Amino acid sequence: MPHRFERDGDAIYRQSFAIIRSEAALDRFTPLEQLAVVRMIHAAGLVGLEQHVAFTPGAAETVRLALRDGAPILCDARMVSVGITRKRLPADNPVICTLQEPQVPELAREMDTTRSAAAVELWRPHLAGAVVAIGNAPTALFHLLNLLQEPACPRPAAIIGCPVGFVGAAESKAALMDTQGLPALVVHGRLGGSAITAAAINALASEKEI
Amino acid sequence: MPHRFERDGDAIYRQSFAIIRSEAALDRFTPLEQLAVVRMIHAAGLVGLEQHVAFTPGAAETVRLALRDGAPILCDARMVSVGITRKRLPADNPVICTLQEPQVPELAREMDTTRSAAAVELWRPHLAGAVVAIGNAPTALFHLLNLLQEPACPRPAAIIGCPVGFVGAAESKAALMDTQGLPALVVHGRLGGSAITAAAINALASEKEI
Repeated sequence: MPHRFERDGDAIYRQSFAIIRSEAALDRFTPLEQLAVVRMIHAAGLVGLEQHVAFTPGAAETVRLALRDGAPILCDARMVSVGITRKRLPADNPVICTLQEPQVPELAREMDTTRSAAAVELWRPHLAGAVVAIGNAPTALFHLLNLLQEPACPRPAAIIGCPVGFVGAAESKAALMDTQGLPALVVHGRLGGSAITAAAINALASEKEI
Repeated sequence: MPHRFERDGDAIYRQSFAIIRSEAALDRFTPLEQLAVVRMIHAAGLVGLEQHVAFTPGAAETVRLALRDGAPILCDARMVSVGITRKRLPADNPVICTLQEPQVPELAREMDTTRSAAAVELWRPHLAGAVVAIGNAPTALFHLLNLLQEPACPRPAAIIGCPVGFVGAAESKAALMDTQGLPALVVHGRLGGSAITAAAINALASEKEI
């Protein structure tokens, strides 16, 4: 007997979001923040993720407006950039990932750092007003925060900082939230990842939930 | 003051894997299975994931040998295919994702199903001896299991079944593990995702842990 399963993609989204809203503790978030958090939980398959999510005040709105104004989206990993649903973007926003640029391995050797951190150096021409989406590498987020200590470095509109893992992830996200004047969204601790990061962008990019 | 952080990528992996091995309950897995589970935990940032991981007996070895023999890797989502580290593959294995093929939206309408399930139809010419890596869509896994009920359908070598989410994910993975004669690796329940799935491939693809 063939397996029977729900075959309507929109219905799957609706049912999933309804389950998440019934189970997750979303009251401390604004309605716009909730849209992001619901999709992040959906991407992770993990109710409880919301306990680790933090926004600076107004950051969700800042991301939405920046995207509407055409902000480029700077991604630390291709898994993030391919996870962003292009048809949800409001202004055909450029989605940029520099990690595979041919000069990155050599640059990383010169800088004595990771390829992910070296790739962030190549963001400089795109940084002004950008939405940053870091879903993999703590070293990318740390390097960006160091860049932004240079007074001449252009400022992004907002940073979605969800690097994942056991070495530096929690510390890099704490450092982001301790930085004054940077609208930010993080998943504190070890959790994070490219799917969660792309989900935050996908949620805030469009007026439509599904 | 600039932030100080570990800048040696290999050292980050080594420290991460050591933390995971000290915290996770890995005793019930074989050494080869442990390589996969450690990397899956690393990708998720989640010790405890191992409680939900299940292998059919010998499946990890089957994946390793199939990849060594040049098996193609069939992915349900681009986030999975770009997450597979090409330089870890032992035989320059083809990594195939059919979701973006131009005929998929029309095929999904004709079949009255999701694009992810329709894309699986396009796997038929590649399915014999392949390693399947499903990290996103329960409907892809359900559709594949239905295809494999056709006696004439070619058999994959193994299925890594880690679709994520709240509608159908747990059920599709239970159905996979209930199917006789299919070497399989799953994360039971809601957890899963493209990063976890790619991590399982990356772990089993190479003799080198880092």
